[in-house]
Amino acid sequence: MSKPCCAIDVHTHVVPAHLPDQLAEFGDIAWPSIRHTDSCHAKVIIRGKNYRDIENACWDVPRRTTEMAGMDVGSQVLSPMPELLSYWLPPKPAQILARHINETIAEMVRAAPDRFHGLGMIPLQDMDLAIRELEYVIKSLGLSGVEIATNVNGVPLGHASLRPFFAAAASLGAAIFVHPLRPAGMDRLVGPANLEQVVAFPCETALAVASAITGGLMQHHPRLRIAFSHGGGAFGQVLPRLQHAWSSFAAVKAAVTEEPRLAARRMFYDTLVYDPTALRFLIDSFGLSQLMVGTDYPFTIMDRQPTVRVAALGLSDADADRLLFGNARRFLGLV
Amino acid sequence: MSKPCCAIDVHTHVVPAHLPDQLAEFGDIAWPSIRHTDSCHAKVIIRGKNYRDIENACWDVPRRTTEMAGMDVGSQVLSPMPELLSYWLPPKPAQILARHINETIAEMVRAAPDRFHGLGMIPLQDMDLAIRELEYVIKSLGLSGVEIATNVNGVPLGHASLRPFFAAAASLGAAIFVHPLRPAGMDRLVGPANLEQVVAFPCETALAVASAITGGLMQHHPRLRIAFSHGGGAFGQVLPRLQHAWSSFAAVKAAVTEEPRLAARRMFYDTLVYDPTALRFLIDSFGLSQLMVGTDYPFTIMDRQPTVRVAALGLSDADADRLLFGNARRFLGLV
Repeated sequence: MSKPCCAIDVHTHVVPAHLPDQLAEFGDIAWPSIRHTDSCHAKVIIRGKNYRDIENACWDVPRRTTEMAGMDVGSQVLSPMPELLSYWLPPKPAQILARHINETIAEMVRAAPDRFHGLGMIPLQDMDLAIRELEYVIKSLGLSGVEIATNVNGVPLGHASLRPFFAAAASLGAAIFVHPLRPAGMDRLVGPANLEQVVAFPCETALAVASAITGGLMQHHPRLRIAFSHGGGAFGQVLPRLQHAWSSFAAVKAAVTEEPRLAARRMFYDTLVYDPTALRFLIDSFGLSQLMVGTDYPFTIMDRQPTVRVAALGLSDADADRLLFGNARRFLGLV
Repeated sequence: MSKPCCAIDVHTHVVPAHLPDQLAEFGDIAWPSIRHTDSCHAKVIIRGKNYRDIENACWDVPRRTTEMAGMDVGSQVLSPMPELLSYWLPPKPAQILARHINETIAEMVRAAPDRFHGLGMIPLQDMDLAIRELEYVIKSLGLSGVEIATNVNGVPLGHASLRPFFAAAASLGAAIFVHPLRPAGMDRLVGPANLEQVVAFPCETALAVASAITGGLMQHHPRLRIAFSHGGGAFGQVLPRLQHAWSSFAAVKAAVTEEPRLAARRMFYDTLVYDPTALRFLIDSFGLSQLMVGTDYPFTIMDRQPTVRVAALGLSDADADRLLFGNARRFLGLV
């Protein structure tokens, strides 16, 4: 058996215990705040509404290190709760919020540097500010990279307008973790509000991975290290259709100069799919070398048994180790 | 080996050789017309623009019966080219168009009744007209059912407003084949126009299957026979997340009273996924008993080797026969 104590969980989220008060000068914007209800519980309030009930696991280092041990996880990659990415804010307050969250994550990493790696956030609604904050995150805070969303106010991540950011990330050696946010297809849901993250998120992520491939992301930035959450969402099932279309449609082949199934294997994906058949499908689709443990800790939808799922695959020790931590170390730039 | 001569291809499309001229009384609407360029080729023109170049395989019975033999297909299920469903037309012209296409498909079935089964179309933008046309399709034309889209002008098929149609379909024993159309996520695509069907279609279909499950479609209409094209799109990868959420979120469990993985196995899916790993994933996700051969004949993206893919699975003769024709016969109501 492999060494579960060493598993790296690349998909865990942070909400700071406190956020700076909204500065009056910015007027009526969707600025988040934290309302503590007791010493262990709080609410994230946005525009006067409760966005989410959270626990101190979102910010508390001792609780996280205790709980990760109970999940057979050796270290967590910290990233902001995606709603905090706040691409809809004006650039200046977005930059202030990003800086506060980046400092919070850096502080958590400093408190237990053998248990945490950090991914910050950047105001991608303003390319200059975004690249400046990315440089601060990497050079001054020493974090591993940043989390970004699958789209920036509707612009998919494969769009040419985002290339300056990816060029900077590749140049700085920043790892990029992509998480769904404000997904496409909200008008296609029938049922409770949770279906946004349950149903629309994997489709949104599939569209984002596809846009990365059809936009030639890895060809423009061959050294980029980019990972998609939730196993790339539903992209695994889009890939064979894209591959077939690449062989069938001259227009697709002309636009997409790298074979899709090869391009897909140059990016990373987490294992957060909750099911052995689905996990095996990821391995077959993207290659074992591109997959890393992810759990969504500490939110309700989290996978509490990530290493049990890996063990159930019946892999060799060497392959299990790659899934548990080896691939994550490559993604994070540690090897 | 199984009997490939008996394979039923449930996913093939028809465009009539001629469409009635737009009646002047309807004004400026997106009424399609067929412009023949030679005896074998034509263009579908909508609002003065070329929607698609087509060949006489879209309507020519002898060509279809010859070509299906070359694909090891014994019979085809005929359904309209999805763009013809025309939910965006005013109800009256939509009904006229539907009637013409339904008569065309019925005529093709009558020309070779041992080689064709027919699915008609209905103007779902008007529930009364839709149910009346459905009754005509089943009772007067003797077709097997109808093709519908994944959404009706943005309303997902699991929405309560569509229940009268599904109730009528269940009552009439009409088979329902669901095809993506006007998909969600168009603003997330980067690349040529074909990506609408290549990338957005499978995500749109995933959203539609999810809406059927979260909307309780099979619980409201337990006798309904419904099939989703393209293997249910990317829904196979959404299902384990929906299943996990059903166990984790009280709101999801309260709204979705049947376990998603069981609900998914009460519906049918075609095998049009172009890849052995993806096909095996469908079998594992939905059950072999729910899958049927589909090819998208006669369009460019079609799968030319449907039975070769089934043979490559190494199934028992009995299971291969179920995939090749047995399940389709159940879906069509022939057994």
